Amino acid sequence: MIFEGVISTRNADASAHVTPMGFEREGGRVVIAPFVPSKTLDNLAGNGAAVMNLTDDVAVIAGCLTGRRVWPVVAANVITGWRLATVLTHLEVMVERRSGTPERPRFECNIVHEACHAPFRGYNRAQAAVVEAAILISRLDWIAPEKFAAEMTYLNIAVAKTGGPREREAWQWLLDAAAAHPRHRFQLDVTV
Amino acid sequence: MIFEGVISTRNADASAHVTPMGFEREGGRVVIAPFVPSKTLDNLAGNGAAVMNLTDDVAVIAGCLTGRRVWPVVAANVITGWRLATVLTHLEVMVERRSGTPERPRFECNIVHEACHAPFRGYNRAQAAVVEAAILISRLDWIAPEKFAAEMTYLNIAVAKTGGPREREAWQWLLDAAAAHPRHRFQLDVTV
Repeated sequence: MIFEGVISTRNADASAHVTPMGFEREGGRVVIAPFVPSKTLDNLAGNGAAVMNLTDDVAVIAGCLTGRRVWPVVAANVITGWRLATVLTHLEVMVERRSGTPERPRFECNIVHEACHAPFRGYNRAQAAVVEAAILISRLDWIAPEKFAAEMTYLNIAVAKTGGPREREAWQWLLDAAAAHPRHRFQLDVTV
Repeated sequence: MIFEGVISTRNADASAHVTPMGFEREGGRVVIAPFVPSKTLDNLAGNGAAVMNLTDDVAVIAGCLTGRRVWPVVAANVITGWRLATVLTHLEVMVERRSGTPERPRFECNIVHEACHAPFRGYNRAQAAVVEAAILISRLDWIAPEKFAAEMTYLNIAVAKTGGPREREAWQWLLDAAAAHPRHRFQLDVTV
């Protein structure tokens, strides 16, 4: 099963690196497969620890993809590293084994600490739409413009109907990125 | 902001009525707008209390829409009523004011108790897809078959890529309902 969260790792200079990340989870273990090359990969390989931040603040996810990379963090409890300050749950993980291939390495990790900071508020279709759009935005360089436009137009309905201010802000950041992309110059042609 | 949850109300015979329900939430208040006619409406009007169950078990949502209406419940803490036994968070609410229209009544409620039972595990695209599909399934009687087919085919990708056994089971229940519906007789024509 694959969940979407935000991973925070510790850079060589001790600062935090924060980025959205899907991960597999089964019981007390997670598998993280970072892109090559990436800071997350360097940090996991370098110090073998990370935090999976399970947030319902989609602005962090959309923000990281649109150049807003600095988010408030606090020290993790067990590992040497950082978690997001505002998060529903966080998992602290340590790498047990590196597998996969050089092109697509996999880090099999044990969950060494889990903490719940705030209750789940229920599914929100706008948040789910931002998560879907964030994945599309990460593929702007190769996704077909017609396909991208059709999916964004569809997702916009849920954001308009069910989102709050935070979801709308995150959505706007993604729209701005799509409008600025030379292959797309995407503009929504619907008003819901 | 609109969240999707599962509402449990108390029937006149003291048993539980469980059904998926979107609701507005702002701070310590929620607004519930049940369909007319519905058991949820009768119960809210009759005893003025309900539980919003915030679950990440999409089988409950898909199940209620496909004839599987009995789910384990336990007594609520503050109101006289029931909550789902397995839930991440539950909100116990009491009706403060009835507004809206006879055709679309709105129950403005105060949250009188909130309890967190299990941590949020992160966004899962398969769960979000089941929620979207459940909404489509509830509209089978009037949604255009081509539109329904296109959206289900799209949502199927996320279920196949990111779902676990529970999400796949819920998805299959929805597919079965769509296949049996005389206006649709829907069959997926993709294998992911």
